[in-house]
Amino acid sequence: MKSGVHMTIDDPLTLALSGERFEARYRVRADDAAAALARARDICLEQTVEFPEALIPNDTIREQIVGAPEPPIAAGDAAWDVSIRYPVEAAGGELTQLVNVLFGNVALQPGVRLMDVTLPGTMLENLPGPRFGIGGLRRLLDVPDRPLLCTALKPMGLSAQALAQLAYNLALGGIDLIKDDHGLADQPFSPFAERVPRCAEAVARANRETGRRCLYLPNVTAPAAAVLPRARAARDAGAGGLLFCPGLAGLDAMRGLASDSSLALPILSHPALIGGLALGPDTGLSPRVLYGRLNRLAGADAAIFPHLGGRFSFSADDCRDIATGCTDAMGGPAPIFPVPAGGMKLDRVQELCSFYGRDCMLLIGGDLHALEPGEDLVQRCRRFVALAAAA
Amino acid sequence: MKSGVHMTIDDPLTLALSGERFEARYRVRADDAAAALARARDICLEQTVEFPEALIPNDTIREQIVGAPEPPIAAGDAAWDVSIRYPVEAAGGELTQLVNVLFGNVALQPGVRLMDVTLPGTMLENLPGPRFGIGGLRRLLDVPDRPLLCTALKPMGLSAQALAQLAYNLALGGIDLIKDDHGLADQPFSPFAERVPRCAEAVARANRETGRRCLYLPNVTAPAAAVLPRARAARDAGAGGLLFCPGLAGLDAMRGLASDSSLALPILSHPALIGGLALGPDTGLSPRVLYGRLNRLAGADAAIFPHLGGRFSFSADDCRDIATGCTDAMGGPAPIFPVPAGGMKLDRVQELCSFYGRDCMLLIGGDLHALEPGEDLVQRCRRFVALAAAA
Repeated sequence: MKSGVHMTIDDPLTLALSGERFEARYRVRADDAAAALARARDICLEQTVEFPEALIPNDTIREQIVGAPEPPIAAGDAAWDVSIRYPVEAAGGELTQLVNVLFGNVALQPGVRLMDVTLPGTMLENLPGPRFGIGGLRRLLDVPDRPLLCTALKPMGLSAQALAQLAYNLALGGIDLIKDDHGLADQPFSPFAERVPRCAEAVARANRETGRRCLYLPNVTAPAAAVLPRARAARDAGAGGLLFCPGLAGLDAMRGLASDSSLALPILSHPALIGGLALGPDTGLSPRVLYGRLNRLAGADAAIFPHLGGRFSFSADDCRDIATGCTDAMGGPAPIFPVPAGGMKLDRVQELCSFYGRDCMLLIGGDLHALEPGEDLVQRCRRFVALAAAA
Repeated sequence: MKSGVHMTIDDPLTLALSGERFEARYRVRADDAAAALARARDICLEQTVEFPEALIPNDTIREQIVGAPEPPIAAGDAAWDVSIRYPVEAAGGELTQLVNVLFGNVALQPGVRLMDVTLPGTMLENLPGPRFGIGGLRRLLDVPDRPLLCTALKPMGLSAQALAQLAYNLALGGIDLIKDDHGLADQPFSPFAERVPRCAEAVARANRETGRRCLYLPNVTAPAAAVLPRARAARDAGAGGLLFCPGLAGLDAMRGLASDSSLALPILSHPALIGGLALGPDTGLSPRVLYGRLNRLAGADAAIFPHLGGRFSFSADDCRDIATGCTDAMGGPAPIFPVPAGGMKLDRVQELCSFYGRDCMLLIGGDLHALEPGEDLVQRCRRFVALAAAA
């Protein structure tokens, strides 16, 4: 206990923590190593005790609860990487609180960005990650070795009947995964309870004709109390997977879907809203953490993100960072598919395949409907299939 | 229907929408009015059909579903404000989908910021907002006309017993609302099931002694399936309100807590993680929307945010914008307390009171423990009360 400070709290208990730590790497803006370390020490306090250092009531808390910084490493112009090791107990065995320790309060501060996260095995046992991952989804689809092909049912405003007809044609054309557009919720023009059975049936009918295993993934992003009921209704109606926006409906709600063995459906994660936290450059979460790490910890089997050169602004480095976060060894969670998207077109299939390799899922939406003269939707899908097979 | 475009979708249905619209105002980066309008048209598509304009399969969707832009208004150097009117049906009567239409995909684009939101009465009927608001919380506390005083139980690492002792002293000293630190979840050093009854009992005991109505607000930010059970357990244990982090556990989960009449507890919203979306300057959500509008629509009764000059970087304009978003007429949801925080100290009470007026809640954490010589925690709380009463 520091001397000269008047303590307001007396806690006779001795903490008996495991001593195990998880690690977060932050990039901080700082002029030199000393300033970077000072910043790191602030983060150590901010993300745990949120209390002035001098007033921490005992050394046990100071030593066992407060994050511990590693020496800063230079990371470019006025940028430093600092790794901080937090006690596993601070996360309390819950994904919500883990994210809170990693980045809850410092998300509100400029000049600090969460770059990566490393969890020990004991934490990963509690966060097993995707039920399927790349390997499981390939087995489900019986597509062992080429990029998976995905598209979306849209535009919003079509009737359930028209969306089902669309789904049928897309499945007939050889698409592997047909998801609801993330803007299809439970609107009066195509209510969930009508849309999902119709589209699932349409895809099943196409599968009977083609002998393939195309999956239909309805959007179960919904009010908190409706997420599980909709996922169960989707499963009962024959859906082959789920689309979910963790930024709109909660990261842990996605984990709940993934871990529910009565569902056992693959999950495609969409970055609506939360993707804004990765815009940076020196705030928020790295694309690796946001699209890769968090999605894997929360059980997504594939992560949609905006590939460079579409309607969004991601760089090649960002996209590589996402692919790394989705597919590298995390010690527990299986690798998941990166899903480059955001205005992709058929003429970029080859480029996408060489950028990501075979272990990616190509998501093309609107461009499948930009037919060449004489072409129909089924034929255009087949062209998508052929382009991916050739790439 | 545009000519020369090959349509892939045939939908014989005629939409029968109400024609009612809600409005979002965005600030876009653009060199001139024409560029701003082009950007607005892109947003109109992105946030609804997410489909190339030329390929939209019928005029009904084009006219009734796609957002409609108002003429851009100059808003400074290369900045324009554009208001977009979306059909109420696009939001499908759900807060998750409303947020998705307002800002789901464009959150991933730089150079566009959601500045404000205006909803018509029919939508607000479905989103009644806070159960208490400023008036209700004042009645609950029997504090008709001064700023409310709030503090947090911390630091993380203390036992439930020590936190309860702290709560007792804080309540004895005259604090109105004592919340769990947002970092207190269900950790082994103070498990939820032990901490909450102990702290609630301690505050009740102090209330019996003082005759006051101090409220204890445990943190029910939790995994999706645990939010409601913890809130119910908190209520049963005598908690007087709830602390919730919608960025960690979902905005609609907070709405669920607010609308649950078996709970009927006031809610204090904490910006962990999601606050990063307001850092801007030309991305994300304005502080007004993030702290004010969304919290009110999701039923919070008070919104914590970092006041200028603390450990965070908000400007005076940001803080005024938050106060506006919390307290102005929205057409339905009651005004809620702005809760300036983030390293506030006793010597700033007067400044805070003149900045926000009496309708604010002052949250001072660590500084209540920075005792002057001879002072104890109860006395220091009383000084906080006296400073707020005098201001």
